[in-house]
Amino acid sequence: MHLQISLLLLFCLNIVHGGDGYFSERYQKQSSIKGPHFLPYNVKSQGNVILSKAYPAATVPIKFDKILYNRQQHYDPRTGIFTCRTPGLYYFSYHVHAKGTNVWVALYKNGSPIMYTYDEYKKGYLDQASGSAVIDLMENDQVWLQLPNSESNGLYSSDYVHSSFSGFLFAHI
Amino acid sequence: MHLQISLLLLFCLNIVHGGDGYFSERYQKQSSIKGPHFLPYNVKSQGNVILSKAYPAATVPIKFDKILYNRQQHYDPRTGIFTCRTPGLYYFSYHVHAKGTNVWVALYKNGSPIMYTYDEYKKGYLDQASGSAVIDLMENDQVWLQLPNSESNGLYSSDYVHSSFSGFLFAHI
Amino acid sequence: MHLQISLLLLFCLNIVHGGDGYFSERYQKQSSIKGPHFLPYNVKSQGNVILSKAYPAATVPIKFDKILYNRQQHYDPRTGIFTCRTPGLYYFSYHVHAKGTNVWVALYKNGSPIMYTYDEYKKGYLDQASGSAVIDLMENDQVWLQLPNSESNGLYSSDYVHSSFSGFLFAHI
Repeated sequence: MHLQISLLLLFCLNIVHGGDGYFSERYQKQSSIKGPHFLPYNVKSQGNVILSKAYPAATVPIKFDKILYNRQQHYDPRTGIFTCRTPGLYYFSYHVHAKGTNVWVALYKNGSPIMYTYDEYKKGYLDQASGSAVIDLMENDQVWLQLPNSESNGLYSSDYVHSSFSGFLFAHI
Repeated sequence: MHLQISLLLLFCLNIVHGGDGYFSERYQKQSSIKGPHFLPYNVKSQGNVILSKAYPAATVPIKFDKILYNRQQHYDPRTGIFTCRTPGLYYFSYHVHAKGTNVWVALYKNGSPIMYTYDEYKKGYLDQASGSAVIDLMENDQVWLQLPNSESNGLYSSDYVHSSFSGFLFAHI
Repeated sequence: MHLQISLLLLFCLNIVHGGDGYFSERYQKQSSIKGPHFLPYNVKSQGNVILSKAYPAATVPIKFDKILYNRQQHYDPRTGIFTCRTPGLYYFSYHVHAKGTNVWVALYKNGSPIMYTYDEYKKGYLDQASGSAVIDLMENDQVWLQLPNSESNGLYSSDYVHSSFSGFLFAHI
């Protein structure tokens, strides 16, 4: 098997929203993913931080700490929380891999889960599950991904198997 | 297991389209999902209905009857059909869970399936499958999700495991 | 089982981008999928070609050769590569089915994988996996889907089980 699945967690978070400006946050291991090298004229916030921990803690926002794009700082890697600055209609999607045990993940808005995804892990067979949602956000609304409990926490990610979280604004309101 | 999987079906349908106005339909059990509390000035149609039935019937449009946003009434919960009022390019996505038996689901446009997703269920292991498509719609075009046959109908959803259907207009044509 | 899974591979690729013009490429078997019959006034490139081969080759771009919409010719079915002509922020998503063996697929930008998805196949249980990413593209940037190696190449698709690749531009930069 040429596929190398390391134990290092890798989360990718792509968040881009438009409007007065765009931002893009992507959390990924730099060694395996090359980021673009341009600076869009209306992208006001980009950043680049590195993920430093293994399986994410449950019952709190997943802290994606490998940021590629976060110039506007609408996403705070210290908390894992995206805070809306441009009201509008957003599309968020997430893709997780399950390994070791089941995965139960939820997309949260302002403290309440608005979308649940569940995947039961069969021993020896890494699996993948996805979810997405259209969310309308007002200024200061907050969105994040979270494992609702500590029992179904088999969220797996590595250099070569990406669990990711993406989002973008597609319409103003 | 803290995860409570009730037998009550829960479908989430997020449809938002922009243009002259946006609408957003989201079908979910209110007890487990808190909806946003604002009224976007150009969201013309929103609604809120409750899903009342279990596993959806096959060979007919899945009737998502828990509507959170459907102010424009472009989605008819009595039929499960979305009817385009604003021509343009739409992105639709769906996420289903399989439990009990296989799931074979298709995205329909005007009576014809345009995207099939299939997931075989292994006893004891709830699974998840997803699909999405870019669809160009003219006025009166209709889109819905459907189980093409009655054999692969293990489409599962509950308060804590959401099968969902989302869509939005991203460009006018 | 009414579901007929033929050995004929079917890839669906929906790519639509906006801006000065939109294009939409969708690769699918015509017999099972009806395409839209309108011509958007600003869709400059559409086409329709047929997929002619089985399981895609690994380590090279997957050549979706069934094109429904490719008027602008930004996607080249001879190479499987999408070349950006309108700089901006794109959302790409892909959905693959695994059958026969594991599937390891990656979204490439300019020769580098930027998103990996992996799904381990359990004998007898066709599975589905998905991925998506927000990608910022400059003119001449290229994007494609590829099996990184030849070992995890169980990418399955048929007339009634679609593996697909979609994308669209949602914001100019």
